[in-house]
Amino acid sequence: MIKTIEWVDGVVRMIDQTRLPTEKVFVDCRTIEEVSLAIKTMIIRGAPAIGVAAAMGVSLGAEEILAEDFAGFYSQLEKKCAELARSRPTAVNLAWGIARMKRVASDNKDLALPDLKKRLRRESQTICDEDIAANQAMGAFGQTLIADGNNVLTHCNAGALATAGFGTALGVIRASVNAGKKISVLANETRPFLQGARLTVWELMEDNIPVKLITDSMAGHFMQKKQVDVVVVGADRIAANGDVANKIGTYMVAILAKNHNIPFYVAAPISTLDLSLASGEEIPIEERSADEVTTINNKRMAPEGAMVAHPAFDITPHQLVTAIITDKGIALPPFTETLKKLAG
Amino acid sequence: MIKTIEWVDGVVRMIDQTRLPTEKVFVDCRTIEEVSLAIKTMIIRGAPAIGVAAAMGVSLGAEEILAEDFAGFYSQLEKKCAELARSRPTAVNLAWGIARMKRVASDNKDLALPDLKKRLRRESQTICDEDIAANQAMGAFGQTLIADGNNVLTHCNAGALATAGFGTALGVIRASVNAGKKISVLANETRPFLQGARLTVWELMEDNIPVKLITDSMAGHFMQKKQVDVVVVGADRIAANGDVANKIGTYMVAILAKNHNIPFYVAAPISTLDLSLASGEEIPIEERSADEVTTINNKRMAPEGAMVAHPAFDITPHQLVTAIITDKGIALPPFTETLKKLAG
Repeated sequence: MIKTIEWVDGVVRMIDQTRLPTEKVFVDCRTIEEVSLAIKTMIIRGAPAIGVAAAMGVSLGAEEILAEDFAGFYSQLEKKCAELARSRPTAVNLAWGIARMKRVASDNKDLALPDLKKRLRRESQTICDEDIAANQAMGAFGQTLIADGNNVLTHCNAGALATAGFGTALGVIRASVNAGKKISVLANETRPFLQGARLTVWELMEDNIPVKLITDSMAGHFMQKKQVDVVVVGADRIAANGDVANKIGTYMVAILAKNHNIPFYVAAPISTLDLSLASGEEIPIEERSADEVTTINNKRMAPEGAMVAHPAFDITPHQLVTAIITDKGIALPPFTETLKKLAG
Repeated sequence: MIKTIEWVDGVVRMIDQTRLPTEKVFVDCRTIEEVSLAIKTMIIRGAPAIGVAAAMGVSLGAEEILAEDFAGFYSQLEKKCAELARSRPTAVNLAWGIARMKRVASDNKDLALPDLKKRLRRESQTICDEDIAANQAMGAFGQTLIADGNNVLTHCNAGALATAGFGTALGVIRASVNAGKKISVLANETRPFLQGARLTVWELMEDNIPVKLITDSMAGHFMQKKQVDVVVVGADRIAANGDVANKIGTYMVAILAKNHNIPFYVAAPISTLDLSLASGEEIPIEERSADEVTTINNKRMAPEGAMVAHPAFDITPHQLVTAIITDKGIALPPFTETLKKLAG
């Protein structure tokens, strides 16, 4: 089992997801700035994994702070955190991981700085461990929605690589397989970054779970051919009303599922929920570089000077979501009530 | 204006569409087998262009036949045509172009063989000329459906490059622009072969028509954002009931258009109609190589050994089609009646 992210001798080691599946290379981050860059360039991606990386990054940032007292320490920490928070805007887990680390710092202001730094390092590991446990809980809840023999379509990579391990959407699939169900997966390649082709197919093949790769444009065709029984995807942020921000193309899949009477499930830890936002319209959508669309393997696919749009995420309105699988249980509509209840 | 396909000194010259937009290279075909290979490998593609290439290919095939009499000539011609017809299964224009050339041969069986060969050469040029005229007629009819200021979404390339010139779907856009309307285009990149990114964006930029490239997975997002007023696509074969076979992903776009109350128009010459098929279910769908999905620029994007599906086309049921724009006029539902009438 490949570790997506872990502490190794005081450095944060990540598998470089931009180079999978052809190359298995690890990147070591020694500073919060390096973690920030790894998030920005998608060496690590996936909302829960970004949350863990953020926490570990904050710990690295805390480590190098020299201060007389807690106030001095905390003001420097806040500045570093603000910079890290800007690395990617859509996934709420980034802000969530940072906020949790800051809270732990505040809660332990009476510790001597070296002890506080150790406490923060420990907290980042706890967040990592909790993420895996949350995914396993999600899997246990979610697998009750998947029937033996189901063909499951997924978009992007909401797998072990998008988390500290086990995965959210792919965690539900893994738990279904572990429960003895025969499951096969259709993986959307997920242009432009090809997380489906490169990451989802790779990690399911590693686990010997049958997976077939398709282009995003084929999802409708295979639903029409009755080769999809259920859709499970992850989420980068969920608004209070159940609107879901996830990888661009998720909205398309949700519309297609609705039109073919196929259940559309979202699997995400409760930390993905942003109760401060009433609806998905308030979720910021990251616009990434045009090069990711026009250039593949350093070769231009579109003419020089072509105008390009590249929203990295879209919003799936809650009306298209059958259920949201969280680590605290399954939320059914009306989500405004059920999500609030699960969030406690 | 680049010629998609033309006779040059007795050879069939095509622009190599596998190498656009980065390289502008021409391929000369001297035999029917070379034309067949060019169709198979998508050096030339697009249903109407394939029809023209087929006719020119038959002429090349006829040229090299040595026979005592018409019966001997025709039996050899039939064999060559049967081989050519196998190059791609979905576009009916291939079979249509071949059938028309065979009919002209039969109709002129009393000519001396050298004269018959000249007659066939002339017919292939007529088919080429008629295709451009048909596209201009389609443009004239179709532009009445497009309003000033419209944002038009298109999928794949149904442009000058998919025809002898002017284009079907892009012909409607060109005619709208020529009629003084301000039009902007959203082009789906159209995985896996990227006809949108490589060909549609290129030919619209050549004509200074504003075009923005998006991945196929973004189409729904931009409809949700009200940045699409109308969809126009081409077709590879249309059944008697109006079901449309077109590039994989067209069905997805049609479902999305329906869900956003956006008109979905299909532009295709009447030769694309196959009245012998009651519905789209009878249209053969070409399954192309997995390599076109897993490998881009000779670099693998998916793990070695990954299972892949690659249907090159899908079927859009007539219920999702607002109107079919042909060179004989615009067909509205019920298509079974209106298409039959237009076909005469």
